[in-house]
Parts: sequence; structure tokens; C-alpha cells
Amino acid sequence: MMERSYTETLQWRHLRYVRWTDDQDDIPRGTVSWEGRLLFGYPRIGRILNLRVGLSEQFGDAFWVEEKVDGFNVRIARLGPDIVAFTRGGFLCPFTTDRLPDLMPMDIFAKMPDLVICAEVAGPESPYAEASPPYVQEDVGLFVFDMMRLGQPGFLPQQQVYELADAYGLPMVERLGRWHASDSEHIAGMLARLDAEGKEGAVFKAVDASRRIKYTTAHASLEDIGVAAPQLNDFSADYYIQRILRLALFLDEQGKKVDAALERQLGAAFLEGLEASIEQLRAHGRVFHRYRCRFRTERAAREMMDHLVRLSGKRVNVRIHGLECDGGYWRLSFERQPAVMTGLLSHLLKGGELFD
Amino acid sequence: MMERSYTETLQWRHLRYVRWTDDQDDIPRGTVSWEGRLLFGYPRIGRILNLRVGLSEQFGDAFWVEEKVDGFNVRIARLGPDIVAFTRGGFLCPFTTDRLPDLMPMDIFAKMPDLVICAEVAGPESPYAEASPPYVQEDVGLFVFDMMRLGQPGFLPQQQVYELADAYGLPMVERLGRWHASDSEHIAGMLARLDAEGKEGAVFKAVDASRRIKYTTAHASLEDIGVAAPQLNDFSADYYIQRILRLALFLDEQGKKVDAALERQLGAAFLEGLEASIEQLRAHGRVFHRYRCRFRTERAAREMMDHLVRLSGKRVNVRIHGLECDGGYWRLSFERQPAVMTGLLSHLLKGGELFD
Repeated sequence: MMERSYTETLQWRHLRYVRWTDDQDDIPRGTVSWEGRLLFGYPRIGRILNLRVGLSEQFGDAFWVEEKVDGFNVRIARLGPDIVAFTRGGFLCPFTTDRLPDLMPMDIFAKMPDLVICAEVAGPESPYAEASPPYVQEDVGLFVFDMMRLGQPGFLPQQQVYELADAYGLPMVERLGRWHASDSEHIAGMLARLDAEGKEGAVFKAVDASRRIKYTTAHASLEDIGVAAPQLNDFSADYYIQRILRLALFLDEQGKKVDAALERQLGAAFLEGLEASIEQLRAHGRVFHRYRCRFRTERAAREMMDHLVRLSGKRVNVRIHGLECDGGYWRLSFERQPAVMTGLLSHLLKGGELFD
Repeated sequence: MMERSYTETLQWRHLRYVRWTDDQDDIPRGTVSWEGRLLFGYPRIGRILNLRVGLSEQFGDAFWVEEKVDGFNVRIARLGPDIVAFTRGGFLCPFTTDRLPDLMPMDIFAKMPDLVICAEVAGPESPYAEASPPYVQEDVGLFVFDMMRLGQPGFLPQQQVYELADAYGLPMVERLGRWHASDSEHIAGMLARLDAEGKEGAVFKAVDASRRIKYTTAHASLEDIGVAAPQLNDFSADYYIQRILRLALFLDEQGKKVDAALERQLGAAFLEGLEASIEQLRAHGRVFHRYRCRFRTERAAREMMDHLVRLSGKRVNVRIHGLECDGGYWRLSFERQPAVMTGLLSHLLKGGELFD
């Protein structure tokens, strides 16, 4: 039998690094190593779908509550002279790495060279995500929510994260305070407010750092569905069903009887995206979504183009539309074409048959 | 390696029969044999999601159009002295077999002993299906749509089916005439009418019997989702996604821009069923759906109970509520409990976490 491989070796400029493509014992997928150093992958976080019972089931003692931001997860670390950002999957992200000086002060790494900052990058000009938080009106923002140390799998205590963020002026996710499970009525009210503000949800972190859990709003479930529906069959069918269940349990939690407006939002999340894709296919022969993002340097923009094309494969085709220097930034525009949806819709609109 | 088995042997009263549990070369799943005779399984029928292009793509010549009825598929045949009905899976159905004298005249089998009648059994008192056509107000009805012969895999020509049905007074699905692909505008109008009447769709059968294809209405997609949603995770997630895609393409075909009423119907199909299941779980500790069906004989009712319990397993629990003789019928009431949904909702409402 062939030895199973858990890693691949990649190169970015002068840096040669290894990323874990799969979990291997205690080393999670997305872990990165270079020159004998190890940057642990960001762990998967469990989710509860009922707050009032869930918080007391999950937490015996106090926990911090923070906004959960809808973007993409990066881990930022110092590598010799460079400060670089890795995606959740363990790829060096040319986009985030290039933009870091715009997104956060970096002097903290001079003082703490083995620090790892975990942050969400979110906004309408994200090269990965299509949803965007309401308070990022253009470009992207960066929101710190955790810190780790190189070579260590766990997180720094949250109190220390807050102190460091304050001391170094790091942009953070919204901090919602320190609470107990007995405050669940109040917390349910906070979630109702986050939902009304179009935010994704909250993360709960035990003060003793022993565990963390997440919970998402109706808004997040609806937005996730609406963003994916134009590429319906390129997402796993479970993706949608999980979100519909979350939505039903959020409404139950909030004591909302299902109402016409919300039913309509759920139906619209599916049907409007599909209608748009059918029209795209008729007009252009393909389904696609356009992205724009901006870079400080042409070199990084070209690295990102290579990165996108390398990630492009059987499932998603990437087509670069252009790269222009404008207003001090290199602006890249490209599209992703979901391959399954393009193929399926084109078969069906040609009158092809399906067996199911 | 162990020889793979494609069949199992079952017993009903004095009859020992073999059913194919899986496709084996040209013998489809659901095929049944006894005493050297073979009753071929009902073949899978392809589906188009676009009529105007699809009909001309699929049919070079004339085809018959018939209503597709939303019930369960049976094949009815004479076995020595008995006339019995098999389900699509190849199980002898104690319910349909018992009720046949109520549902259709049977003298055709005296004249044509090797005839196989393919029919849909549908109505609010079906032991299998939850959806029901609008024109069956109580109990069940039987609607013939195909005929085969024992030992032969194909169908009788549809013209002959119509003649035999007329001659013997067999109840049939609605016949919608003989058409060509060039009549697709008219056919799209028929489908709009079927949709407005709450019917499932249409089946198209080449006059030369070379092929057949089906097409379903928006109503059918919405009803399928609404019926399954209370047992959300007991159906494959693909079940829902396929129906949402069918719905979007039906609307596209009918030139309907997505409207608020329809969006709401789709959202309601999911959320109202889920809300009901959450309430059931809180009130009763389980999710369940109640069924009623009636029998001519106590013996058949008890056979059906055994059949239901035998089919009951890890995925669905069956609980019998009662069997009473009333108004000349033995009335069986029972419930099915979807095991996955009951387990999942109960975990979540206890505050359990999920990883996804």
C-alpha cells in the first residue's frame, strides 16, 4: 500500500512551506510549516442551534461573546523579514499578505515575533467570499478575533487578546462582553439585534479557554443560501439543508412564529439566484460571478491571478477580466464559473433528460 | 469474494416469490418471479426540465400525453387464483391487493391471464404517500397508466392500453391526447392548467413505444418539499435541491418572473413543516406523521401491519395506533417516526453541538 500523504510543499517568492491538506492525528488540515516552525491550523468550531439550552449545556462558567464576521479566515504570522497571511486551508494568500499594511498596524510582530493573529477578512472586494458584512461598504476590512503562538495549537486567553489589541490598536470583531449561561435571555436579545443589523452571529469562548462554540442568525442562513443558489449544484445539497434547519431553530428560539415575510425571503434566496443563472446561461452560455479586489503591488496581483488559476479546476473555472492601476491600487477583476451548474443548466435548457 | 446477491425470497400466504433488491444486468430492481414466471420491474423514467426544447429533443414523432398522478406505483397481475399487486420495490402489497375489488373491475384478467396492469394508487388514506391528488377526496383511487405482459420487459402500445381500459372499464389517468413536439406551446398551456389544478405533471410516451419522459409542475415540487420538510434530514438533501431546480425551470418555462406569492410558498414549504416538527418534539418527544388506511379483511390489515413493521428499521420507526372495524372496513391507524429528524432535533433542543 502506498503511504498516505497529508502534506504538499508550496513556494511563495523565496519561501518554501508545507501545508497539511488533511487532518493528521493532532495536526489539523491547514497547518503550515517552514524551516522547522509550525503554524497550527485553525480548529473547527462546533455550533449550537439553540441558545438558551445550548449555552448552559456547553458552558459551566463565564464566557466571552464576540460578533462572528462573515468573511474568510486568515492566520497572520511573521516569517523572517515578512509578515504573511495564510488561508484556512494553509495557502499563503497573496491578496491578504499584500494588503496587510492597509488593514492593521503591524508593529506588534516586532515585539512578539512568534505571535499568530487570527482574523476575518471581509468586504465587497474580497476575492473569496460573496457575502459581506453591512459595515464594510467598500474594499475589505480585517477583524481580529483570536491569537495563537507559532508551534502551539491553542489560543491565547481572550483577556490577553483584548489587551494586546487595545495596546497595538488592532481592529477587532465587536466585543459583546463577558456573560454566563444564566444570561441567556439577554444573549438571545443580542442575537436578535445582530440579526436585525444583518450580521452573521456570535462566537462564545470560555473564559478559561477550555471551549468555544458558535451560533448564527437568520440573516446569515438566508444570505448563505442566496449567495450559493446561483451556483445551486456546485454546493453540496447539505449546505442548504443545514441552513434551513438553522433558520427554523433561530425563529423558534426567538419566539417568532413563521411569518409571510420570512417565508418569502427564504423562497427568494433560492429562486432569484436561480432565475439570474438561467438568464446568464441563455445570454452568455455560462454561469458566472464577478469579483473585484485591489492590490498595493502589481507583483501580488499577478501572484493572486496564479493562485486563483491554480485553485481553479474541474469544479470552478476562473477567468481573469483585467488588471489595471487606478487610484494608487492595482485593481483585479475576474469571474468564477461554477462548472457543475453551468453544465447542468446547459444540458437542461437544451432539453436533456435527467434520471433521479 | 462472496457472490453478490440481487434477490431475496419472500412469502405471502401460500405464495413464495423472489424480488430483485437491485438491478442485475437487464433485470431491474423490483422485478418479481414465482413458479418460473417473471414480472419485470417498472423502469425508471427520465425527466425533462424544459418542455419546449425538451420535447423536440426527446421525440422525433408523435407521442401520447397523460397526467402523472402523485401516489404509489403498483403492478397488478394474476397469480394462479389470486390477483395481487406489487409495489415498485417488488413487495407484495397487502393493502392494494386487499382493496383491488374496490378500485377496479378485474374481469380483464380472466380474458388476459398474463396481463400486468401498471397503476398509481393515490389518496389521503394511502399507507405510503403523504401527498394526494386534489380529486381523491377520501380513501384512495387507482389510476391505470401502462400495461405489460408477464415475462416481457416492455409495455403494450398505448393505443391498445386505451382500448382495453375502455372495453373493461378500467379507471385511467387523465388522457391528454396525441401530440407532436411542434405542439409544445399548447402542451406548455396544458401543464399550466395541471399546475393550477394541483396536479403532479405529465408523462409523454412515444406512439411507437420507443421512449417516454416525464415533466412535473411547480405544484408538485412545492408539495414534495412540504411533505418531506417535517422529516427534513430523513430525506437526502438532494431531494430538495432537485425540486427547487425543477421549480425554477418550470417558472422559467411558463414565462413567470418569480413573484412574492411563489417565493413565499417555497419558504413556507420548508418552514411550516419544520415548525410543526419542533412543536411535536417538544410536546411528544418525537417527530411523527399519522396515517390511516382501510381494508376489506382483517387478515390483510394484519398482514399490512407486519409488512410495515418489517419495513421499519433504523431509518423509520412504525407505531401501530389501532385497528377497528367500522362501516364495513377494517381501519388501521399508525404513525411513522423519522429516526434521523427525531434524533437530530432532540440533540439540538437539548443544546447539543454540531460540527459542519
